[in-house]
Amino acid sequence: MRQGEYHDDHVAFGGREYALDEVDVLPPCDPTKIVCVGLNYERHAEEEGMDLPERPLLFLKPPNAVAGHGDTVTLPSGKETVEHEVELGIVIGEQCRNVSEADAMDVVAGYTCADDISNRDDQRVEQNWIRGKAFDGACPIGPVVADPEHVPEDAAVKLRVNGETRQDSSISEFIFSVPELIAEITRYMTLEEGDVIITGTPAGVGPLADGDHVEVEVEGVGTLEHDVTSV
Amino acid sequence: MRQGEYHDDHVAFGGREYALDEVDVLPPCDPTKIVCVGLNYERHAEEEGMDLPERPLLFLKPPNAVAGHGDTVTLPSGKETVEHEVELGIVIGEQCRNVSEADAMDVVAGYTCADDISNRDDQRVEQNWIRGKAFDGACPIGPVVADPEHVPEDAAVKLRVNGETRQDSSISEFIFSVPELIAEITRYMTLEEGDVIITGTPAGVGPLADGDHVEVEVEGVGTLEHDVTSV
Repeated sequence: MRQGEYHDDHVAFGGREYALDEVDVLPPCDPTKIVCVGLNYERHAEEEGMDLPERPLLFLKPPNAVAGHGDTVTLPSGKETVEHEVELGIVIGEQCRNVSEADAMDVVAGYTCADDISNRDDQRVEQNWIRGKAFDGACPIGPVVADPEHVPEDAAVKLRVNGETRQDSSISEFIFSVPELIAEITRYMTLEEGDVIITGTPAGVGPLADGDHVEVEVEGVGTLEHDVTSV
Repeated sequence: MRQGEYHDDHVAFGGREYALDEVDVLPPCDPTKIVCVGLNYERHAEEEGMDLPERPLLFLKPPNAVAGHGDTVTLPSGKETVEHEVELGIVIGEQCRNVSEADAMDVVAGYTCADDISNRDDQRVEQNWIRGKAFDGACPIGPVVADPEHVPEDAAVKLRVNGETRQDSSISEFIFSVPELIAEITRYMTLEEGDVIITGTPAGVGPLADGDHVEVEVEGVGTLEHDVTSV
């Protein structure tokens, strides 16, 4: 396992370049937990028929949910509706607690792309979204951790399924900002190096089916690709 | 860090005995996640005014929630009602997925005691119980991992606060058995060695306050003790 620099057509490590098909791109960090935010874009809240939240709606994905760039995620079996959700992921760079909004960017290692794959059959009927959101592979992340300076404040977030655009929005629509999310979460829990916060999805969520190829793009970060299968 | 045998008045390791006040008793395992079960005792469901569940009600506590025997847990600040919940904890012994009920006990390393500390102020208003149940220290576990053969099928589970009994029940009242819980959880997620399932609490939950001393007892396992503080 090595950490290299990811470019459009190669990976650089140790003074050498490797073609993308010569390497397996692993998840860019090893989170002890993924703290997830719901309803952080106004138009997605509307499409779900929900009132806007007064404080961040939080839920969790455990480490078994992590998948990486190029992985094929096996959807939970026997479910009618499993959907994609493009999200900006915040990768935490150091152990932290009770972080102020002013200091929040200091604990950020960088940004990544995430797909918050959601099994709606169970999410709709569960109090806590465990079968709905915490199954194996429910959170592809990657391909890289990008310096926040490369990610504009109105960065586009897009998701394509088999080449067709399903979600196309911008993080300028956030209800709660990155510093506000970090401050609120660390009021209750310690974040560790490598932990990830995924920041909610914009409008346009839609179903995934066996064989779909998903591209999750965040401007300034890159494009995470994964496939899905149902067995 | 060493693994020894825990006795009533000493710990044995490497052919020597140590008085309990000579050692720090760490959490007995290092979970990547704690999978929690709600409403698994009929009378507790009644006291919460809930219908009996048709399948296990699940939620999660991340690793930051772990506390150990002898620890002092800092309660979330500014909350009116934070309560104790005695639970039997199942410690997983090997990585596993899709475990049948028949094979479930093969993946169990043993049983431990747990306190599912719950911040009701937030739990009552959250969709997912994050501020309510996933804060730092919200899950003291320990002091040991006991062989399930030492734990009778009607093992008493008790909780005392400052010596006063608050909860006193038996795991014979479980709605879902240990094998049923393992089978259902591993239908969705891989469990890792050291992961913990906490199995729900019986009737008698009640408030914790600054300075309280809590004893969590499971027959055949032992007694987990912890303190609480609010700052």
